[in-house]
This record gives sequence, C-alpha cells and structure tokens, in this order.
Amino acid sequence: GALGGLWLGLWRWQQAAMAASEEAEDEKEEEELRRRFMAPPVSGMRELRRRRRELRSRMELLIMETQAEVCRALGELDPGAAFAVDTWERKEGGGGISCVLQDGEVFEKAGVNVSVVFGLLSEEAARQMRSRGKALKARDGKLPFCAMGVSSVIHPKNPHVPTMHFNYRYFEIEEADGTKQWWFGGGTDLTPAYLNEEDAVHFHKTLKEACDKHDLKLYPKYKKWCDDYFYIKHRGERRGIGGIFFDDVDSPSKEEVFQFVKSCAKAVVPCYVPIVKRHCHDSFTPEEKLWQQLRRGRYVEFNLVYDRGTKFGLLIPGSRIESILMSMPLTARWEYMHTPPESSKEAEILEVLRNPKDWVH
Amino acid sequence: GALGGLWLGLWRWQQAAMAASEEAEDEKEEEELRRRFMAPPVSGMRELRRRRRELRSRMELLIMETQAEVCRALGELDPGAAFAVDTWERKEGGGGISCVLQDGEVFEKAGVNVSVVFGLLSEEAARQMRSRGKALKARDGKLPFCAMGVSSVIHPKNPHVPTMHFNYRYFEIEEADGTKQWWFGGGTDLTPAYLNEEDAVHFHKTLKEACDKHDLKLYPKYKKWCDDYFYIKHRGERRGIGGIFFDDVDSPSKEEVFQFVKSCAKAVVPCYVPIVKRHCHDSFTPEEKLWQQLRRGRYVEFNLVYDRGTKFGLLIPGSRIESILMSMPLTARWEYMHTPPESSKEAEILEVLRNPKDWVH
Repeated sequence: GALGGLWLGLWRWQQAAMAASEEAEDEKEEEELRRRFMAPPVSGMRELRRRRRELRSRMELLIMETQAEVCRALGELDPGAAFAVDTWERKEGGGGISCVLQDGEVFEKAGVNVSVVFGLLSEEAARQMRSRGKALKARDGKLPFCAMGVSSVIHPKNPHVPTMHFNYRYFEIEEADGTKQWWFGGGTDLTPAYLNEEDAVHFHKTLKEACDKHDLKLYPKYKKWCDDYFYIKHRGERRGIGGIFFDDVDSPSKEEVFQFVKSCAKAVVPCYVPIVKRHCHDSFTPEEKLWQQLRRGRYVEFNLVYDRGTKFGLLIPGSRIESILMSMPLTARWEYMHTPPESSKEAEILEVLRNPKDWVH
Repeated sequence: GALGGLWLGLWRWQQAAMAASEEAEDEKEEEELRRRFMAPPVSGMRELRRRRRELRSRMELLIMETQAEVCRALGELDPGAAFAVDTWERKEGGGGISCVLQDGEVFEKAGVNVSVVFGLLSEEAARQMRSRGKALKARDGKLPFCAMGVSSVIHPKNPHVPTMHFNYRYFEIEEADGTKQWWFGGGTDLTPAYLNEEDAVHFHKTLKEACDKHDLKLYPKYKKWCDDYFYIKHRGERRGIGGIFFDDVDSPSKEEVFQFVKSCAKAVVPCYVPIVKRHCHDSFTPEEKLWQQLRRGRYVEFNLVYDRGTKFGLLIPGSRIESILMSMPLTARWEYMHTPPESSKEAEILEVLRNPKDWVH
C-alpha cells in the first residue's frame, strides 16, 4: 500500500541520485583518463580502482602511464606528426592499445603498444613462456594466466639518431593447487647506425642509475644479459649497443621487483629523449642513409629469426600480428656482401657490435 | 749407362709431352668452362669427367648449367648490368659459386647460387634435413653426406614484373652399414605484386608440361605442396601465386627423379623470361612501387620466419650467410595496418594469396 509506495519512491530517488553521481564520476573519470592515458585501460578504471592494492592493477597502471609518457615525449619532439591510437580486443580474453606514429619529421616509425591478455594456457605454452622453462602443474592440462606489458620500438629518420626499444612485462599463472606463479621481464636497448660514445655513455649511465637504486648487482648482470640476448648469431653481431635485459625475475619479492621495473620504465624517456634532441637536426649524406637502411635490415633479421617475443607472438593463435610487427622498420635494405671500408665510421660501429664494450663502470 | 741414359731421356721426353698435352687440355677445358659455366665446378672438371656416370657428377653439371643458363638469360634482359661471380670454399668440405646482379635497369637484385658441400652430419641434423624426418643409422654418431643444389631469387624493379624463385637440390647420406640414402628436392614459384592471369597461366602451364612428361600425377601434387609450403601463417596468406614444390623425393628411381628434376630445371627460363619481357617496360605509379615494397616485406617475413632452407642455413655452422640471404630483396617496407581498398588491384592479388587458384587443368 502507501508504505510500499513510499519505499518504492525512496528507492527510485536513491537510484536516480546514484545514477547522477555515477555520471558525474564518469565525466571526471573520462577527463582523468584523457589526461593520464592514451585510451581507457583494458581492465576498466573502476575495476582497477576496486582492486587497486593488487599488483596486476598497479602494473597495468604503470604500463598505461609509461605508454602515455613516451608518446607525449615523442610527440613533443615531432610536433607535426600524431600518434594514431588503436584499441583492440582479444577474443580469448583481454586486449590492448597500440599507438603508432608513421612517417613523421623526426620518426620514420614509432610504436608504443600496451597489451593485457588473460585466459588459459597449455602446459607446453606456459613452460615456453618462462625463460627457465620451469614445469607448472595444470588442472585438466590448462593453466589460467594473465600477461601484460608495454613494448615499443622507435625508428627515427635521421641516421644519427639511434633506434630504441623497450619492453616491460608481468606474468601470472595459477597452478592446479591454487599457487600463483608470477614473474617480470623487460629491458631497454639502443641500436645506433653510427657510434656516438657520449650517447652510449648517457644511455647506459641512466639505466645504471635506475638499477643501482635497487641493487648494485642488477646493472652488470642485466647489461650482459642484453648483450647475450640481442645477438644475431649468423652475423656474429649484436643488434645494437645494448642496455639492459632480464626475464623470468621473481625475487627478492613481488613488491621489490615491481619497484625495480617501475624505475626502469621511468628511465625510458630520460635515456632516449636527450639523444634524439641532440641529433635530430644533424645533417647526413645519402651514403649515411643507406647504411642506416642496411642496419634496419639487420634489425629485421634479429626480430624475425631470434626474438622470443616476436616468435611466440607469431605462433600464438589470437595474437595481434599488426601489434607484434609494429617493431619492423618502415623500410629496410639488403645488399649482397656489403662490407664497409676499414677505419670508416661504419666499421667503427660494427667493431662494437662484434665486441660489446662496457660504457659505464 | 748409355741404356739407362736413353731410358731416362725417353722418360723425360714423355713427361714433357704429357705436360704439353695436359696444358693444351687445360686451355681447351678453360675455354669450355667459360662457355658452359659461370666458374669452374666445385668438384673440378677432371673429377667430374672421371666419375661422369655417377649421379652426383651429372647433378653437379646440371646445376652448373642451370646457373649459367639463367644468368645468361637474365643478362640479356638487363644488358647494362653484369653478374658478379663469387666462388667460395667451405672449410668443412666443398664450396659454391654465387652470381649476383644488383641494382640493374630491370632487376633490383638477382642471385643464382650453386653449392656443393660434403662432410659429416650429426644424426639429428640429418633427420631434420629430410622433410619426412626418417631416422638414419650413423657410425659413431656421424653420417658422411653430400648436398648440392642451385637456388635463385630474382627481384625485378618494375612492380608489374613478378619475383621468381627456384631451387633444385640433391642429397646423399651414407649410413653405418654402407647403404646410401639419397633424395631430391626443389621447385619453382612466382610472387607477383599485381595479378596478371595470363602470366599466371603461362607460368603454371610451362611447369605442368615439364611435370607431365614424367607422370601426370606430379603437377597437381607438387602444385598443392607449393601452396601449402609458401604459407605465411601469421598473415593467412601465401607468399605468391605458387608453382611447384617437392622435397625428400626418392622414387620411382634415382634416374627417373633426376630426369624429372632436369625437366624442371630446363623449364625455369621458359617459365619466367617471357613474363619479364612482357612487363619490364610497363609504366607504373609511385603507389604501385610502394605496394611492391610492402609485398617485399612479406617476402622477408616468409624467408626469415618459415623457410626451411633459410632457417637451416642460418643454423648450420660454416654455412655462407651472404649466399643464404641473397634471397632478400634489396629494399622492403612495413606499414602499420596497411589494408588496400576493396576491389582495388591490390585487394585482387591478396584474394588469390588467401585462396589459391588452379591456373591450369
């Protein structure tokens, strides 16, 4: 009766008030999203806020922030060009945000990609994902997993501005008994066509400082891992002058590794932007441009023949090919038996690619 | 005494006469070599003549002749350019002859490579070499082997002239008990940037005629094998419009397979040269050149990610990288999310690469 009507009216009023406040929150939220990120996060802001103490959420925010920071910094260096932002969903669970700048004034091709994917993995796929190949116990042969990361390759136009790559990622896998396996991986590395010692030292020093805040053993260990990983075996050359690389890291603790990864991610812009600024107006000859194109060819060789990320990506059903192959340069070149003359600038970088140097001590 | 002196004199005279006749033979031989081949065969003419009835020798002569025929035919199409001829030795046994034309008027990059290598293989390497992965019994874990072949990739400049690839090869492996395993492999296939039905039909018809002389079942079987093999899984596309491909063929008999391979090798020039002639003066737009460069990128993807020959080559110690990567185009391009407009000429070829057609019945 009347009481029922009162209650119903009150409930309706409450519903309306809630809807209004949610709308206001949505607007504020949208504004915040636009300011902080390139697109709404895959997991949704509300969900991320709700489980804000979980590492998955904090990592997703970190990779989103890193994407936005890097895109903003690159955009400032190349004001005429704009990042195209693509969001995509993965049928099997999750999705991603790809930001790509193509054919700018400063950058030939720059891609910054975030992906947050989850679902079920086969035992074999899970084993392959860990660099140490640890076995994981599955229920019915399937393991629930969550993988997220930010990855980027920046190919500039000017042959005196090096290519830069970084990637920071986090994995979680739940075993049959409910134990959660987790690990981090990542790295930042530089691929110049011509050696500039000052740049090399700046780049490595910035990375070393980020590592040293956490443990003095990290930089030397991950610098060597980087030189070993980015090795083009059939050429006897490294892809570039290195940086840091690590994979399958799960100690000392989740929190400590996360803080380390955060420091590395925050170091990307200070590592690279000063180098771009210093050289993006350098003059260059057609011969220097040609050498850059030959080095781009080597980049393609490494990525398609050896890179674990690319190879797994291409083999995993439901993976987004365009986001994986975003790392390809816009153009590349292969000449038969190209050998630079002795003591040329081209021979100088080759020497360093064959015998990696220590840039900071 | 005197008699001894006489004999000695006679012996000396004989020696001198032999040397003179050998010299004359060398000159004649050199002339013959220059006429028939791009360089002296790896095994030496004398050795090849000595064991002229053996299949290894006949196959080496066939691959040498094929190399010369193709180089001559391409040279006539691009008179301003010349093939650079490189002979190389393999430390572990054997060697090869690489003929490369770079940056000509008609051809962007054309390579025709012969290699004849022998030595010892591990059981695992031998198993991987056979597409059927048959196990072979080794003495002390090592198998004496001999592998030879001619392989070629021709990348023309004009986007209306297709890229062509062929490869004909022969393997012998000796098992612990002395039994010799042998098999042939090979194929010829076409990769156009734009579809021209007349060219496609001519190419396939010429191959079918070469096959039909031996067995009517061969063309349909090897045409399908080609479509299956040159598949870029991550793109859902074939590399080109196919041709024929076969591997690990050891029946009905060594002689019959050799005769079939010979017919295929002899068909290379008639397959391809008329197509080049028909289109090498076609006009083209910058957009068509760009599309060709994107298709070159796909060519690189197939060769580095999937091609068995390239992958094994890069992994085998002592292999000659420059001869393996001769197949790379001079230049290639990758654009993020490039999709040709519906019912364009670019979409037309993509449709055929996604759904291979039968060109001859």
